[in-house]
Amino acid sequence: MKIMIIGGDGYCGWATALYLSRQRYEVGITDSLVRRYWDMQLKIESLTPIAPVHRRLDCWQAITGRHIDLFIGDITDNAFLIQTLCRFEPEALVHFGEQRSAPFSMIDREHAVLTQVNNLVGTLNILYAMKTCFPECHLVKLGTMGEYGTPDIDIEEGYITIEHKGRKDTLPYPKQPGSFYHLSKVHDSHNIHFACKTWGLRATDLNQGVVYGVRTDETDMDERLINRLDYDGVFGTVLNRFCVQAAVGYPLTVYGKGGQTRGFLNIRDTVRCVELAIKNPAQEGKFRVFNQFTELFNVRDLAVTVQKKGKEIGLDVSIRNTDNPRVEKETHYYKAKNTCLLDLGLEPHYLSDTVLDSLLGVAAKYKHRIDKEQILPQVSWRR
Amino acid sequence: MKIMIIGGDGYCGWATALYLSRQRYEVGITDSLVRRYWDMQLKIESLTPIAPVHRRLDCWQAITGRHIDLFIGDITDNAFLIQTLCRFEPEALVHFGEQRSAPFSMIDREHAVLTQVNNLVGTLNILYAMKTCFPECHLVKLGTMGEYGTPDIDIEEGYITIEHKGRKDTLPYPKQPGSFYHLSKVHDSHNIHFACKTWGLRATDLNQGVVYGVRTDETDMDERLINRLDYDGVFGTVLNRFCVQAAVGYPLTVYGKGGQTRGFLNIRDTVRCVELAIKNPAQEGKFRVFNQFTELFNVRDLAVTVQKKGKEIGLDVSIRNTDNPRVEKETHYYKAKNTCLLDLGLEPHYLSDTVLDSLLGVAAKYKHRIDKEQILPQVSWRR
Repeated sequence: MKIMIIGGDGYCGWATALYLSRQRYEVGITDSLVRRYWDMQLKIESLTPIAPVHRRLDCWQAITGRHIDLFIGDITDNAFLIQTLCRFEPEALVHFGEQRSAPFSMIDREHAVLTQVNNLVGTLNILYAMKTCFPECHLVKLGTMGEYGTPDIDIEEGYITIEHKGRKDTLPYPKQPGSFYHLSKVHDSHNIHFACKTWGLRATDLNQGVVYGVRTDETDMDERLINRLDYDGVFGTVLNRFCVQAAVGYPLTVYGKGGQTRGFLNIRDTVRCVELAIKNPAQEGKFRVFNQFTELFNVRDLAVTVQKKGKEIGLDVSIRNTDNPRVEKETHYYKAKNTCLLDLGLEPHYLSDTVLDSLLGVAAKYKHRIDKEQILPQVSWRR
Repeated sequence: MKIMIIGGDGYCGWATALYLSRQRYEVGITDSLVRRYWDMQLKIESLTPIAPVHRRLDCWQAITGRHIDLFIGDITDNAFLIQTLCRFEPEALVHFGEQRSAPFSMIDREHAVLTQVNNLVGTLNILYAMKTCFPECHLVKLGTMGEYGTPDIDIEEGYITIEHKGRKDTLPYPKQPGSFYHLSKVHDSHNIHFACKTWGLRATDLNQGVVYGVRTDETDMDERLINRLDYDGVFGTVLNRFCVQAAVGYPLTVYGKGGQTRGFLNIRDTVRCVELAIKNPAQEGKFRVFNQFTELFNVRDLAVTVQKKGKEIGLDVSIRNTDNPRVEKETHYYKAKNTCLLDLGLEPHYLSDTVLDSLLGVAAKYKHRIDKEQILPQVSWRR
């Protein structure tokens, strides 16, 4: 089965491409490499030294004998996208190819517009390419749990049955996204849902939680295959960032009270969730939504967990509550459903001492590469 | 009070600008005139011969002594927008400046992308301009009833209180828009809601129904002030189109079964609704949604009404059911709330014989300008 990974040079995309290649899918990668360009512009860098994409792929082929096609270009360039898809002829399209940072989208007007136009136009181009050339293809699209915000009722998977004034209907779950990035994902979801209903396309929206971890079985095969690990205030996500902070003796920075609860998952589960979606495609005309996380944590508890683990291995870890750069509730109700992927057979890798050991180990190994200036958030949500 | 009408050369914008000017508001118009350009490209034309915008405004000043500032430029050009707003210093911003046709957005990929990028970027630019320069300004934004689609429960005004698993919250009403245009309005609503919550801006989203009519007290003052009347398959809306078809002896084309129920309002009420929103601004940080229609009709009943009225004045009017170019339910439940504007004092101009007389009269007067080739829909929603 031929699977195209759009954004296959990124954090989730790279791990997924190698995993699926090893599972004997025929994998292609499309990537504009713009994320590496943004890193340079923002003067940030992955903690781990990631190889150029073509060298990574050469290494993968040398080690495993498995070839991954590489198409370098931007899916917002429709001619490039059509040409690429017509050459590769995918049966499933895994779409990680979006600007994925909330702080990046909140830097200023230009970054808000860039994020929304980039993400919307790329996804619209994919939908039209599917409509015109690959109507049977299954779109597996990365969404985010952040689309839902923090409603005071339980979060369902994409839809909710509402009883209202004696009548009942199942409708798209109301969305309350918290940044222009999260908004772009909500816009995408609406656009994809419409394309499925109107053109009979099939799509799965993976509303992913916060991903942590960096090592997977495939990237462990050779150091040249190492995945990116972001710890900076723009692209770094909370648990990865805490481990890097712990390794370098920097206080764990908890935004505000730290009562924010979110869904989390190990990157080893990200790759399996994508495979489960591919193996069990959405039906024609169906827009399916899976909530893709395995555990709920609040930020303060996570900090304490990392602190405890750090102390066990001899690190002196402190916790510092900083002003919250975001506008968000710092304590709130949070209960979200995540049974769709479990029902398909997902066996979660829960957060464990082993995982934290591994993350702290990677962070310690590369701590000479850390730029402490980049750790604190520099983008504010406020007026 | 200074009010900027963005899109003030369009159908709703023109009527609103004149009405507010006559009510002694200080009015400015910003318009890129791109709608007139699209008309040329699509080889369509308003039934009524509309004057160039600067001549219209000269005429208005000559007749009433009231001046309306004119700024010609595109709000997706941020430098132009900022310069314009800083010169005019609006206290309220009425935003009609979007691509507003569902069929236009469904022509092809290019028109879908144009619609969404144009509408989103214009509105994002406005939000950032307000955040930076005019945080007290009240944004009155044209949305559409089409954002809601046709759910099987009652449609509320923007929000719905949901009881779910023993808990309760009031959340944004779930949206099921039916074209890339309608989707762009849903995206806008989410973006504006976020900006209000995060930056403390104030906004009112007017989810407008299908507008009909062409004459208002102000445009009646001089033929050079006449408003546009679209009857073509791209920009023409249903009741206006029926009246033009009746006047020219063309069958009234009902899409599919014609059981589609929608909210409608007279353009004389559009201008009053905008004024009511301006007079009663949203509070700081509030994103308010008003459903802006006065009556519900289904398309088949409207056709019969026009047919009956036509026959009374000697027109031979037939009705023809055509294939529906859209993907939509042709019979469905529809009950929508519209009390917010009534509570603020709206006194509706309901659809009456007089209104139909007037519309049929205008259509008859200019029927020599009709291009019958443009009446039938040429854009299909289907794959």
